[in-house]
Amino acid sequence: MKDCKDQSFDATAFLPNFLGTFERVKGNANFYGMKQLPQMLEIGEIANEYIELMFPGRCGRDRVGLSLQEILQDQLNMVSTRLMNQVLIALKYSHPQEEEAVLKEKSEHKIKSLCAMLPEIRLKLKLDAKAGFEGDPAARNVREVILSYPFMKTLVIHRIAHELFKMQVPLIPRMFNEYAHKETGIDIHPGAVIGASFFIDHGTGVVIGETSIIGDNVKIYQGVTLGALSFPKDACGELIRGARRHPTIEDNVTIYSNATILGDITIGKNAVIGSNVWIKEDVPAHTMAIIQEPKLTFRDLHGRKN
Amino acid sequence: MKDCKDQSFDATAFLPNFLGTFERVKGNANFYGMKQLPQMLEIGEIANEYIELMFPGRCGRDRVGLSLQEILQDQLNMVSTRLMNQVLIALKYSHPQEEEAVLKEKSEHKIKSLCAMLPEIRLKLKLDAKAGFEGDPAARNVREVILSYPFMKTLVIHRIAHELFKMQVPLIPRMFNEYAHKETGIDIHPGAVIGASFFIDHGTGVVIGETSIIGDNVKIYQGVTLGALSFPKDACGELIRGARRHPTIEDNVTIYSNATILGDITIGKNAVIGSNVWIKEDVPAHTMAIIQEPKLTFRDLHGRKN
Amino acid sequence: MKDCKDQSFDATAFLPNFLGTFERVKGNANFYGMKQLPQMLEIGEIANEYIELMFPGRCGRDRVGLSLQEILQDQLNMVSTRLMNQVLIALKYSHPQEEEAVLKEKSEHKIKSLCAMLPEIRLKLKLDAKAGFEGDPAARNVREVILSYPFMKTLVIHRIAHELFKMQVPLIPRMFNEYAHKETGIDIHPGAVIGASFFIDHGTGVVIGETSIIGDNVKIYQGVTLGALSFPKDACGELIRGARRHPTIEDNVTIYSNATILGDITIGKNAVIGSNVWIKEDVPAHTMAIIQEPKLTFRDLHGRKN
Repeated sequence: MKDCKDQSFDATAFLPNFLGTFERVKGNANFYGMKQLPQMLEIGEIANEYIELMFPGRCGRDRVGLSLQEILQDQLNMVSTRLMNQVLIALKYSHPQEEEAVLKEKSEHKIKSLCAMLPEIRLKLKLDAKAGFEGDPAARNVREVILSYPFMKTLVIHRIAHELFKMQVPLIPRMFNEYAHKETGIDIHPGAVIGASFFIDHGTGVVIGETSIIGDNVKIYQGVTLGALSFPKDACGELIRGARRHPTIEDNVTIYSNATILGDITIGKNAVIGSNVWIKEDVPAHTMAIIQEPKLTFRDLHGRKN
Repeated sequence: MKDCKDQSFDATAFLPNFLGTFERVKGNANFYGMKQLPQMLEIGEIANEYIELMFPGRCGRDRVGLSLQEILQDQLNMVSTRLMNQVLIALKYSHPQEEEAVLKEKSEHKIKSLCAMLPEIRLKLKLDAKAGFEGDPAARNVREVILSYPFMKTLVIHRIAHELFKMQVPLIPRMFNEYAHKETGIDIHPGAVIGASFFIDHGTGVVIGETSIIGDNVKIYQGVTLGALSFPKDACGELIRGARRHPTIEDNVTIYSNATILGDITIGKNAVIGSNVWIKEDVPAHTMAIIQEPKLTFRDLHGRKN
Repeated sequence: MKDCKDQSFDATAFLPNFLGTFERVKGNANFYGMKQLPQMLEIGEIANEYIELMFPGRCGRDRVGLSLQEILQDQLNMVSTRLMNQVLIALKYSHPQEEEAVLKEKSEHKIKSLCAMLPEIRLKLKLDAKAGFEGDPAARNVREVILSYPFMKTLVIHRIAHELFKMQVPLIPRMFNEYAHKETGIDIHPGAVIGASFFIDHGTGVVIGETSIIGDNVKIYQGVTLGALSFPKDACGELIRGARRHPTIEDNVTIYSNATILGDITIGKNAVIGSNVWIKEDVPAHTMAIIQEPKLTFRDLHGRKN
């Protein structure tokens, strides 16, 4: 008998039945016949390079002797090129009948539009970091927020992905969003519109749905859901995709941990939403909405074995 | 003084005391004396290769010129071999007194049983992806669901791990499950029985306990717990391991975000469980169970500094 | 037209505007000018090496023929050296005016203090693993807990990071904590004081704030928050950083999933806190605090289309 390391399994006998499961489908779940798909690993690396573009030096990479301009030029060319190639793959996937030259032009055009947005995105991200510092007494300085707070990672990725979503790039915006979700536990759909100075503390379990609109200076905590209450269907009973179904959160709102806010409703400016609240209707501006003090039942456990 | 990169720390003086902590234990927390353990890194890679086996092409790997049959043959042989070697390591760990030849035969037999299940598993996974598309208006097509929805990753891994769990492979099923948990925030014990067309949206914080039973066409949202209410103990006060203690969820049930369902109870078919509900008793079929409208306290914040 | 793989994007035209966003800041969000920062990737690897130091063999690395003493000596020297170098980088970052020789001495001193704590930390971790086994009927043995339960990973990292936090090492304790958070969904601030035999089951979404104090034999479930109720400000309206604002959890307390405990309050020994409870006031010892049975509204769904 061969050594364990060399032992290999011959699965030939099991192949026909398994192959059979590929013949009953109509293409929807198959990828093998396709030229190429955007790659999750590459999308994740591109996401990290955009973080490094926004805060050069953050990843600790050694670039002694280069000027800021040289660092940015290299980084911007590199990350734009890598993203453009993935966008092209995604466009070919969605428009297989279109000529390659046309799609190349389209992908280049989209990357140009994104490049033109980067200054505005960076200014917003600096405000987000500042909001994190000002909103959390455990933060020692702004750099600690940028270096180690997960919401910063999510927001760099979201603010890039949101631009791609608006340009109707297929697949990639959602892949960016799922990469951020995997890394941070914060799940923001790339369609969500998010204002300046946004701070998510801790963040695990946060869900922000596709048609949510969030104003400036909003602060939310872990486990908050901005979700849909029901899904409109068309006359054939099919889900209407992309319809407005998520909340609007106005400026200066704070939402505490595990609050659930559902449907196309409005939380008015300066409102405060308490922990574990479950809201399906508008909340007026300048209002605090908290659950009635939960009536707790206290039972004496004296004498139980511990 | 040497350069920072070359500076090294000599910990010799601290070794005896640290070594001393190894002598007070009775083997339970030590691994060093053991031949080999299943490796988490390898288990994670194997999990990803099963995902690629189920949806070849998904990872974007380039395989131009190969037929589907060739791709599947290679992939199935490779992933089966790698898993077989890990299973053998796990069996040696649990049965150190057993002869290697016997364990090799056992591990090969288990991989064969798994291979025989793969067609059924793949058919279920295609239904899961379809359920995701039909259950989420933000999904643009089935392929987007397979490419980027975290529950798909978790379900490929769970459906494989569950077979290994049933065959009583030690350690590996839980390691698969923890790999999926780490990647997606969805924690499904490999013992849980899950029907066809299962959809978990978002998923962060979902916990599905060891003895849960879930029917067909069930849909659950982020933060849902199917947990145990109390743990039966034997006459010596020791926990009884593996006893039935989790819910049964019948066909067509929907459970909204952060609902907690505890104990060996039944949620009847077609039932709908609302957000943040906390349930410890049976819910009849065709029933909606929601928390009474939370009585919110509204306080006017006009004039507060912002 | 060139091949897709060769196509590159020239972003030169977009550089000036983007560069402009770097001139409006006062240094707070910039890293590029800095010598070097602690690296998240390296911190993550160091964290994993400390796990391997505590439970040698766990990662499955092959070290046949070496004695435990040899394994530990190598591992302890290696991981101490790597951490010392990161600590030095962090000290240089925070004390740019200080002489390098002084900082090297300080970093070496801190690593020595940490080395002296390792035996105590390891004894605590073994008790944590035992608490996991005794607290979860799904666990088959202590080794399974060490190998695959996410809280073990988090606690090794937390117990190391907490020592560094007490020694006022800048940046690195939080980076350790965020690495553990990313890997496990459990977010424990390195400032939190945690007693012996601590068990977190599942863990996704758990948040334990900076000034929390947790006694011995405490058990908590997924989604539990030990948070702050409000943030004290100084006379200028600035947040007071580091002030006491989180709960004290006394010995033998159990806190069930998604309970939220806020503010500088005390949960007395042997107390049990139920799921989804929201607590802002002291709970006496030997007491169970549960939410009143939620009054559920049941609606018959018979006849609805499924």
